[in-house]
Amino acid sequence: MVVKADLAENSAVRGCMVIKPYGYAIWEKMQSELDKMFKATGHQNAYFPLFVPKSLFEAEEKNAEGFAKECAVVTHYRLKTDPEDASKLIVDPEAKLEEELVVRPTSEAIIWNTYKNWIQSYRDLPILINQWANVVRWEMRTRLFLRTAEFLWQEGHTAHATQEEALEETRLINGLYADFVERFMAIPVIQGTKSESERFAGAVETYCIEALMQDGKALQAGTSHFLGQNFAKAFDVKFATQSGGLEYVWASSWGVSTRLMGALIMTHSDDNGLVLPPNLAPIQVVIVPIYKGTEQLESISEMAHKIKSDLTAAGISVKYDDRDNFKPGFKFNDYELKGVPLRIAIGPRDLENNQVELARRDTMEKNTIFIEGLTDHIQSSLEEMQSNLFDKALQFREEHITEVNDFDEFQKVLEDKGGFISAHWDGTSETEEAIKKKTKATIRCIPLTEEKAAGNCIYSGKPSVQRVLFAKSY
Amino acid sequence: MVVKADLAENSAVRGCMVIKPYGYAIWEKMQSELDKMFKATGHQNAYFPLFVPKSLFEAEEKNAEGFAKECAVVTHYRLKTDPEDASKLIVDPEAKLEEELVVRPTSEAIIWNTYKNWIQSYRDLPILINQWANVVRWEMRTRLFLRTAEFLWQEGHTAHATQEEALEETRLINGLYADFVERFMAIPVIQGTKSESERFAGAVETYCIEALMQDGKALQAGTSHFLGQNFAKAFDVKFATQSGGLEYVWASSWGVSTRLMGALIMTHSDDNGLVLPPNLAPIQVVIVPIYKGTEQLESISEMAHKIKSDLTAAGISVKYDDRDNFKPGFKFNDYELKGVPLRIAIGPRDLENNQVELARRDTMEKNTIFIEGLTDHIQSSLEEMQSNLFDKALQFREEHITEVNDFDEFQKVLEDKGGFISAHWDGTSETEEAIKKKTKATIRCIPLTEEKAAGNCIYSGKPSVQRVLFAKSY
Repeated sequence: MVVKADLAENSAVRGCMVIKPYGYAIWEKMQSELDKMFKATGHQNAYFPLFVPKSLFEAEEKNAEGFAKECAVVTHYRLKTDPEDASKLIVDPEAKLEEELVVRPTSEAIIWNTYKNWIQSYRDLPILINQWANVVRWEMRTRLFLRTAEFLWQEGHTAHATQEEALEETRLINGLYADFVERFMAIPVIQGTKSESERFAGAVETYCIEALMQDGKALQAGTSHFLGQNFAKAFDVKFATQSGGLEYVWASSWGVSTRLMGALIMTHSDDNGLVLPPNLAPIQVVIVPIYKGTEQLESISEMAHKIKSDLTAAGISVKYDDRDNFKPGFKFNDYELKGVPLRIAIGPRDLENNQVELARRDTMEKNTIFIEGLTDHIQSSLEEMQSNLFDKALQFREEHITEVNDFDEFQKVLEDKGGFISAHWDGTSETEEAIKKKTKATIRCIPLTEEKAAGNCIYSGKPSVQRVLFAKSY
Repeated sequence: MVVKADLAENSAVRGCMVIKPYGYAIWEKMQSELDKMFKATGHQNAYFPLFVPKSLFEAEEKNAEGFAKECAVVTHYRLKTDPEDASKLIVDPEAKLEEELVVRPTSEAIIWNTYKNWIQSYRDLPILINQWANVVRWEMRTRLFLRTAEFLWQEGHTAHATQEEALEETRLINGLYADFVERFMAIPVIQGTKSESERFAGAVETYCIEALMQDGKALQAGTSHFLGQNFAKAFDVKFATQSGGLEYVWASSWGVSTRLMGALIMTHSDDNGLVLPPNLAPIQVVIVPIYKGTEQLESISEMAHKIKSDLTAAGISVKYDDRDNFKPGFKFNDYELKGVPLRIAIGPRDLENNQVELARRDTMEKNTIFIEGLTDHIQSSLEEMQSNLFDKALQFREEHITEVNDFDEFQKVLEDKGGFISAHWDGTSETEEAIKKKTKATIRCIPLTEEKAAGNCIYSGKPSVQRVLFAKSY
């Protein structure tokens, strides 16, 4: 569907995708909204180098260990003509770098090495910086938008004087992500923390938002990490406190990526193709003329342009598709495939009656609507569709959180129904690993919840303080 | 000044810079305006891979030759623990790529390899795509913003059915660049074409915009290339014409980069620091309170907040700096250094008289202005400053275009005065090369001009059809 709907395609580079204009336009809308939200909460954008010298990369041990197995390494800075074939190029062995450069899989190392020079005193804190960038992780199995060797993302990197402040920032951003994904992408998410084995390499605590796809598998949609003083210690970043002491700086980092595009597609699509939430649709309304001959087309076009300019004035993005080399039926299918929320069709009889046919992508309902009041009607249809998509996804999610109390039931639900399984866990990596081995399900998160009812681990029977959410995942 | 004004700094990676929040905010403003202009002229954004497989990189011979000497090459996809020191990582020799990947120095190769699959018929044309991305060119001598190993840019890549259309696109964009640089950056530019030796590797014709810096050196601020059918032939991209034939596609590519930041700084700065054109200043107006004690500060703050909200409502970006750990004089210097266009100072007497002190960064003039009508006054001051900066730069540029008619004069003017030298040239690379060797001046462009007065080459005496512009350059 990603390919059919013209969102992206595989490239000649293993695991790297081409994001096509229609897919990129959706990503740009996401970027724009997120960027506003980051700035509204006091963050600034900046840009740090693509490359991380190996010696910096290895400084924070766990982080390095986590990413070393899948990173692209630059070893040379020149090609030269192949002496055996003048039309070919080979790596010039004389242009070997003294120190290899890692293409950033994430930027903590290069950024904390920079922050070291920016932070002397408590007055230099907090630092609240975000970067929009590409990163590379040499994944073995790749899949468009979900897991690609190169992907686009934003990564926030903040520095604070106290642990509490850094933790607050971590939680603030996790909440901001949840808010964005629910309000704009119409995807309900569960906020929680990760178990130790699923934690970001180098983090003390990883907060996350978890969504459920229509096939019953979970998808991690965003993460926000409390890094403690790990990177400050690795890069020796201390600050003079107000009271005259010298302390290591506290840190957070957080990111969402083009993976969100995958979540969007897998949450709302149906058999006819993509279904885009109006808040992120590059084209919210498409107008298709139904006509025979140029004369009819001219009259219809006049009406269409009027409607388009009214809608545009109301802040709605509209496309009028008067291409003459495609039939209306082909266009209908194509815009359904591309998930355009509303379609207006105008035929000769509509002209006479001052009406149009309006089709809504999510419900596939068609209605005849009078031109008078059309803009208002469309505005409210878009709003309805936005909330309908969320409600539908929420209902599906709610129906797919199953509480289980023993391991047989766990395996049965996982097999027959899928979705999240809410179960007691004894808190150990051993149990988590054993369950994963037997079922392929992992702990998606330990939900942030007020009511922590204690119980017994479904696997080991040992005591548990609260239920956690298991699922198979992307 | 780049470092002092907090725009950017060198990083731990040779030749790569860190763009700091204040510098990045200016770049974001540039991006935002350019992006609007691209979209208004029918272009869409997309994203292509960071890496170019070597076999694709070498397909267009001249392009490959032009960039092979300065490209970062990825040869491995994994690091592993150093067996001799468990705290170190080394490149895993078993993770050698079958085919090396070049970090894109420009994206024609990867993009034309993609367009091949997108283009079958004339109906698929034109393709008008732009990409915002990072690129890497392993320059030996680097300098912040002007020449860095990694830089940010946009690169447009278009495909057309006819030569004329591709040429029109090339010229359209060069004109768009000129318009942007003059209207937003307040930098006058000369549009022209490049001589063969200065042409983009792989282009048939390179259009450019050339600016003059205050030290008399020229700076190429943007280029737009007519690529002919070179890339279509290299990647075998043909299309079925309307009349049933099969033809190679015509192409253009074009880009501006963070180098524009360098142009901005070197055009408008003075002894006190940066001077930012209001149209690109992240902070257009800064308000500084002059006070003793909290009581005074409170009354002044009340007035400052009122002014700020009035200005913000008028679309002006304002910062109120009430930090208590810096003296007004320090703040004044700092905002001058950072080039903030207008500074409002408010002291206790201003409060009494319902007035403020307004200082303009370009002229360094200070005036007392009544609160009533302040917003209008500021709006017009910003507009005046914007056009004043352009006029000043234009006057300097006009004074530094010198027509010369013999080579002695050429050398003398170049030595004593600098700037552009308008001179006749016989059109050969040999003459160009000889002049470059003797003077370090190159042909910056062959200006697009109506009146082409013929003459004789200042170096060889051979006939010349029009004057060209020489200069030393960045």
